[in-house]
Amino acid sequence: MKPILVFQTDFTYKESAVSAMYGVVKSVDRELEIMDGTHEIPQYDIWSASYRLFQSMRFWPEGTIFVSVVDPGVGTPRKACVAKTSDGYYVVTPDNGTLTHLTHWVGITAVREIDETTNRLKGKDTEETSVFHGRDLFGYCAAKLASGLITYGQVGPEYSVNDIVTLPIHEPKLDGSKVRGIFEIGDPNFGNLWTNIPLSMFTGAGFAYGDLLNLTVRHEGQVVFAGKVLFHRSFGYAKKGEVIIYNNEIMKVSVAISQGSFCQRYNLDFGPDWEVEFEK
Amino acid sequence: MKPILVFQTDFTYKESAVSAMYGVVKSVDRELEIMDGTHEIPQYDIWSASYRLFQSMRFWPEGTIFVSVVDPGVGTPRKACVAKTSDGYYVVTPDNGTLTHLTHWVGITAVREIDETTNRLKGKDTEETSVFHGRDLFGYCAAKLASGLITYGQVGPEYSVNDIVTLPIHEPKLDGSKVRGIFEIGDPNFGNLWTNIPLSMFTGAGFAYGDLLNLTVRHEGQVVFAGKVLFHRSFGYAKKGEVIIYNNEIMKVSVAISQGSFCQRYNLDFGPDWEVEFEK
Amino acid sequence: MKPILVFQTDFTYKESAVSAMYGVVKSVDRELEIMDGTHEIPQYDIWSASYRLFQSMRFWPEGTIFVSVVDPGVGTPRKACVAKTSDGYYVVTPDNGTLTHLTHWVGITAVREIDETTNRLKGKDTEETSVFHGRDLFGYCAAKLASGLITYGQVGPEYSVNDIVTLPIHEPKLDGSKVRGIFEIGDPNFGNLWTNIPLSMFTGAGFAYGDLLNLTVRHEGQVVFAGKVLFHRSFGYAKKGEVIIYNNEIMKVSVAISQGSFCQRYNLDFGPDWEVEFEK
Repeated sequence: MKPILVFQTDFTYKESAVSAMYGVVKSVDRELEIMDGTHEIPQYDIWSASYRLFQSMRFWPEGTIFVSVVDPGVGTPRKACVAKTSDGYYVVTPDNGTLTHLTHWVGITAVREIDETTNRLKGKDTEETSVFHGRDLFGYCAAKLASGLITYGQVGPEYSVNDIVTLPIHEPKLDGSKVRGIFEIGDPNFGNLWTNIPLSMFTGAGFAYGDLLNLTVRHEGQVVFAGKVLFHRSFGYAKKGEVIIYNNEIMKVSVAISQGSFCQRYNLDFGPDWEVEFEK
Repeated sequence: MKPILVFQTDFTYKESAVSAMYGVVKSVDRELEIMDGTHEIPQYDIWSASYRLFQSMRFWPEGTIFVSVVDPGVGTPRKACVAKTSDGYYVVTPDNGTLTHLTHWVGITAVREIDETTNRLKGKDTEETSVFHGRDLFGYCAAKLASGLITYGQVGPEYSVNDIVTLPIHEPKLDGSKVRGIFEIGDPNFGNLWTNIPLSMFTGAGFAYGDLLNLTVRHEGQVVFAGKVLFHRSFGYAKKGEVIIYNNEIMKVSVAISQGSFCQRYNLDFGPDWEVEFEK
Repeated sequence: MKPILVFQTDFTYKESAVSAMYGVVKSVDRELEIMDGTHEIPQYDIWSASYRLFQSMRFWPEGTIFVSVVDPGVGTPRKACVAKTSDGYYVVTPDNGTLTHLTHWVGITAVREIDETTNRLKGKDTEETSVFHGRDLFGYCAAKLASGLITYGQVGPEYSVNDIVTLPIHEPKLDGSKVRGIFEIGDPNFGNLWTNIPLSMFTGAGFAYGDLLNLTVRHEGQVVFAGKVLFHRSFGYAKKGEVIIYNNEIMKVSVAISQGSFCQRYNLDFGPDWEVEFEK
């Protein structure tokens, strides 16, 4: 069976760019199965694109081809590539940092630059266009690969995985009785914030479900939240409106408000300048 | 042919939770067909989840499996269940009120609690997670059921349909020359409000298309809208910007503004404290 | 293989109208393939509906059936039709201006009015409903056509393509050293504005990538933007935050801010009263 194509972009569904992109895929091979990853990555936010791939990829069948198009450098000389992960997935993407988390946490075993002379859409009177590689290059090339019209080797020339563009990753620390990290991503729907701290580090620090922990959040060094917060397995263990520390869906320590938005209530965000510290 | 899976949640598509959930389904059985019901149920709004199932279910092929995940109690001891309706559909959902309208208006003939020892996702290094039953329990179990890997009996132990959690349903009344009810749901896109009054009760009261009716809306007993309003078959029979009473897509009396938002213009909402009264 | 159905509406996914509509299609023929074009056309905006069809259609396989439901006149005597384009696509739509761009730029070779006596959904206790032709008429009829249950001839009586309702199209002009047009549509996600000027007219005027052009925007005759702006092949050739003139995805001259919103920054919109003028 031909691999599934999972698309993620910052295009939204507000107009018909996604439709044109998917039409190209179906024109290459009517049998191909297309799934929406998300089309609501924040605009130009390569970090989020990288995180969303990492967060969802392992749950798909091996061999699935992800097409990620968050591409502020479209039409400039940044590379367009297809990467292969150590666990058997493919990612078709601009090589602009989108492969950061997969490189660090999963491993990329090979990467090839897409050859535009053979793997770019032709014949729609739009060949002079340089602003829509999701449709003309990434989607088209991914469809050819999924359909078996080209092999991975025919994507284009291989280059060193050491040359993949990556953004800096911040590591959490167990520091005496304290666990320190950053908020590295948010849940833009429910307003939860996810740290870079794995649950195992909490276990190592002796923190257990039911504990009240001192949580301190600093933005650019300034304390913006400090309080004793319950650490438990899910939101429902806190009263509605209370802050709770929990283990998120990919086993990272996270902070939420039960049936509320932690982000919005305390005006918080994520990134390397949002430091968190937990202590019993 | 294997039944279709229709998903509705309050997750939105802003990040990749839906993607992970769908990936699990496709990993269980690549052939399964997944359709978006909606992922924009208002957060934690079990009433809306219940209504949206009722509103759309009958239009799908018999046997279709609906997965509804509006689940503020995720990870706490609320039941996870699969219900079977009298007209041959299945609903995989937390038993938290989501089955209210189907119980009342359609009928649930059987309900089983999902056995987590056999019907929960394993092996992705995320087994300790308690916050994402859409992916790990509801989606996974629904996929097993749809693929035929388990029978309905193998979902888990049956319990009495009388124990299904339901929210209160309010009944409309024909009271002399007046018809009384509530706004029980809204259309969050166009800003229309839908009453709990069936068209047949209007016919019974002698109201006909083309009539001007006195419409009174009370919120917590206070009149918040009162006026003579045209009752007709569709929006286009009122001038742009005018209020109109009409028969909605599931045969309930509703109120709209032609090419405008009735909700927003008069600052109205739905629920048991929003009473409506119609008189000729 | 049965043709794909691509849907576009102004319904959004906020409630389950799309779900009910798609359920009807699957109930007609389980094999039919449904794709979302977009469900976020601005409400009642027939011009945008028309443009979105034109923008995306050519990228889909020949024979694809588009269902477009932006239908402020639902339930009134406006025609419901199925049009056939000169390049082999079908459009199922209210005949209310939605066919404007296809009529002008592609060509409609035949149009038929849907016969409601044979091609309207029956049997769901909602036959008295007059407000949801997406579900009961357009979606249902399109499904019958796609499945082969009816031929194109059986849609209903043919009428003259000259009677198709169209909105006025504005033509751009090369006027000495100046190129004049309007902003005829926007990108509601990224905030770019698309003119009605084809790239070929810029080439004809001697404008080339790398040129700085004088761009003047007038709203109802008043200058609302004037400046020297770089014309280049893509956004990345301008610094972040700078205005840029570029060739868009369907070869029309457009204006953007690199990683910003041109619309929002200068409070601009599109339509016949938004005139643009370019000069070297």
